[in-house]
Amino acid sequence: MGRTVDVTELVLRDGHQSLLATRMAMADMVPICSEIDAAGYWSVECWGGATFDACIRFLNEDPWQRLRTFRELLPDSRLQMLLRGQNLLGYRHYEDGVVNRFVEKAAANGMDVFRVFDALNDPRNIRQALEAVKRTGRHGQGTICYTISPMHSVATFVDMAEQLMEMGSDSICLKDMAALLKPQPAYDIVRGIKQRCGEQTRVHVHVHATTGVTLVSLMKAIEAGADAVDTSISSMSLGPGHNPTEALVELLEGTGYETRLDKTRLLKIKKHFAKVRPRYAKFESDLIGVETEIFDSQIPGGMISNMESQLKQQGVGDRLHEVMAEVSVVRRDAGYPPLVTPSSQIVGTQAVFNVLMGRYQVMTGEFADLVLGYYGSTLGRPDPALIEVAEKQAKKGPITCRPADLLVSDWDELSATAHGLKGNDGSVEDVLTYAMFPQVAPKFLTSRASGPTDPTEESGGGNSPAVAVRRDGGLAPITTPVSYDVRIGDRTRQVTVSPA
Amino acid sequence: MGRTVDVTELVLRDGHQSLLATRMAMADMVPICSEIDAAGYWSVECWGGATFDACIRFLNEDPWQRLRTFRELLPDSRLQMLLRGQNLLGYRHYEDGVVNRFVEKAAANGMDVFRVFDALNDPRNIRQALEAVKRTGRHGQGTICYTISPMHSVATFVDMAEQLMEMGSDSICLKDMAALLKPQPAYDIVRGIKQRCGEQTRVHVHVHATTGVTLVSLMKAIEAGADAVDTSISSMSLGPGHNPTEALVELLEGTGYETRLDKTRLLKIKKHFAKVRPRYAKFESDLIGVETEIFDSQIPGGMISNMESQLKQQGVGDRLHEVMAEVSVVRRDAGYPPLVTPSSQIVGTQAVFNVLMGRYQVMTGEFADLVLGYYGSTLGRPDPALIEVAEKQAKKGPITCRPADLLVSDWDELSATAHGLKGNDGSVEDVLTYAMFPQVAPKFLTSRASGPTDPTEESGGGNSPAVAVRRDGGLAPITTPVSYDVRIGDRTRQVTVSPA
Repeated sequence: MGRTVDVTELVLRDGHQSLLATRMAMADMVPICSEIDAAGYWSVECWGGATFDACIRFLNEDPWQRLRTFRELLPDSRLQMLLRGQNLLGYRHYEDGVVNRFVEKAAANGMDVFRVFDALNDPRNIRQALEAVKRTGRHGQGTICYTISPMHSVATFVDMAEQLMEMGSDSICLKDMAALLKPQPAYDIVRGIKQRCGEQTRVHVHVHATTGVTLVSLMKAIEAGADAVDTSISSMSLGPGHNPTEALVELLEGTGYETRLDKTRLLKIKKHFAKVRPRYAKFESDLIGVETEIFDSQIPGGMISNMESQLKQQGVGDRLHEVMAEVSVVRRDAGYPPLVTPSSQIVGTQAVFNVLMGRYQVMTGEFADLVLGYYGSTLGRPDPALIEVAEKQAKKGPITCRPADLLVSDWDELSATAHGLKGNDGSVEDVLTYAMFPQVAPKFLTSRASGPTDPTEESGGGNSPAVAVRRDGGLAPITTPVSYDVRIGDRTRQVTVSPA
Repeated sequence: MGRTVDVTELVLRDGHQSLLATRMAMADMVPICSEIDAAGYWSVECWGGATFDACIRFLNEDPWQRLRTFRELLPDSRLQMLLRGQNLLGYRHYEDGVVNRFVEKAAANGMDVFRVFDALNDPRNIRQALEAVKRTGRHGQGTICYTISPMHSVATFVDMAEQLMEMGSDSICLKDMAALLKPQPAYDIVRGIKQRCGEQTRVHVHVHATTGVTLVSLMKAIEAGADAVDTSISSMSLGPGHNPTEALVELLEGTGYETRLDKTRLLKIKKHFAKVRPRYAKFESDLIGVETEIFDSQIPGGMISNMESQLKQQGVGDRLHEVMAEVSVVRRDAGYPPLVTPSSQIVGTQAVFNVLMGRYQVMTGEFADLVLGYYGSTLGRPDPALIEVAEKQAKKGPITCRPADLLVSDWDELSATAHGLKGNDGSVEDVLTYAMFPQVAPKFLTSRASGPTDPTEESGGGNSPAVAVRRDGGLAPITTPVSYDVRIGDRTRQVTVSPA
């Protein structure tokens, strides 16, 4: 025995994303980097879509500079990022040239480990990014989004792991964004992957703490052979966040498994964030404690609060339970996509529309795209009757190819536009920032030179913003009113959703 | 497989004791009793020393009436209490006649399951109460206080379990009041008890959540054969409290173990306490989140805050770390008692004195008594040099007999005094209330007729009170200044500790 379990520290990315609406400023992370660097983590997750978005939207911080700073301050650590496959850090599919350039630049600026997932678990949406990572020589981690449905089973997840390994993944991540992964399936899936793909296959397990059961799931995953697990330092853990790093270290004592983590340094990291966290009190999630109702609805906590906010805007906050029941129907009809950005918002919004206007009387453009295959393929086949409705409403046919195969190179156009923006420095990084966040980047580039703003002094704010599907098919926090064109037969009406 | 795991619900006793300073009024528990009664628990813990104390000290509620009300509202449930062995619900040793009368009256008023422990794990302090329980035909649960020291091992705990079973225990409780029980020892001790005492021996496991690891410990205990575990409904769980009931139910899915609990009722119970809890905000513990430092100091969280409060009163709050280190020394010198009421306060106060006045230059009367055997025997032998110092200071010799053997019957005297108190109703219950809380009972009996006060309208308050060792050898929350006579050689000085 005596096997070492590797640990990925989440506090610099998913920790504050889950607990403090991704608002933590770089200035509050810099002082503790040297302790994190020396604590013995396998990797330090520090970059992803929401942190990139928050940097330019709220913090006036250049996310590429944040990455370079982490590289400098964490010289002995593997830096890790979460990458939305063909969506990169944005909300739409990018053509392969953009994907390649993004990965090259992320690696060149210091990224070591790329955790690549797709919201629909469609491996075709993961392949391009993974191959780009491999060309840079960095670590490409193929990712399975864990979900529960009549279509999903241990076998289907193991099948996907096998596909990801065949694509050249250096490791597999089992990613449980909604805290639905119970101990027995955690054990069975990890064991299944090891048996199918070989015991040497590295398996990493990422869980959230929301339902209160997942620390036990991590233990079972470790017993099944998981090589690494994700945790967040205790002062930035639990609730919608993650299991506490120190608890993992302690609970393994005497089991024959151990982490290599330095408890003295962990205590310093804990104390640092315990001191920093209260400054961000207004961004704290309302979801604290344990929410096991998620197991029955299978709807992630953040998605419920978004739907609740949409319903309240329409003056029908009392119909939440109807909508929650409708989510199950919509998800089934759409072929059981996992519920994670952006599928969670697409399914949730359609469920709201079904309840308010009658089932599929009104279909959002995004939901039609989902049903018609424009986000990729789901494990189940969408209801054929629904495909027919979607075809009529969207006035286009279903596809079976990889969605990005329909895209043509738009790099020159993106470059030209980005280079025309005030404040741009002519770098490829700036073009990528613009490509991923075309609505936010122009303002950010203009104000970049004035340096970071203090998020704790933001006016208004409070809690995680609700997120809406934008008309361009992307997603955005609802900070200003968002309008949808709603087609009913031949008539079009506009529905506007505003911040609560 | 398919084994049923029994569950004891803690919310009516230890849940609010740990999270809300034991302040929950009966009026906030009554409305949810019918759901609790039908939810499928093996037992409902609802009575103990602190709840009894809080009833008469803060709530102007008759604790015996509370018990009778629970009996009436939970007709299909086993009611369970925590009993401090020969100390009953008070802080000193009582002679056997008082112990017998207390147990008889508790059973007569409706108690079913008596969990009997001793702070020093001295089985001689448990025997009388356990035998009294057996005579009533109720369930007597012999209890092991889990602690960590160089003297304690899986074997010593299993030895104790064997002794408790030989005394006639109906089941064994492994009680981890400080959240120190890690998964592997949880497994090993439960397995050891089953192997030594027989697989049919019922083992119950009680843990707190403070260190964040103990839900995994419960899982391992279950795998080792534990018959029952203790949890608290999720809206009254975690932090210094317990693991959430619903999380236990969910995490067992697919493991071959299952609870019999009704999830629909659990959700109602959760919602009830989620609604009630905010009213008690001023009593919430400061200790939220996860505190793994406890594993290094082995000092329970509540004990640290008490010591901190004592030090601040003396204007030396900055010496807490010295005192924490000194606790280890004092505990070793005293023969490694578990740190639980009252040994935690006795050891903690002596550590404070050692740091402030030099090691053992001043010895509290209670610490001298501990060292001399007047609380019972510890697993380790106290330092002989220390016994000598204690003998000189206390002007009495060490004992090796059961402490209660030195006591003579004082029932007639207690009865006479109690029956002379204004407001007493002549019942044996009132005599017992007076016997256990001689300083608080007179005022309570006088005001009893005016009925319960609303604890949420108490003036002042806030958080758990610090607890001090009283001059009569008992313990009390520091709500008014408490004075100690401190002997240094021939001189006596008075030290006064007041609420922070």
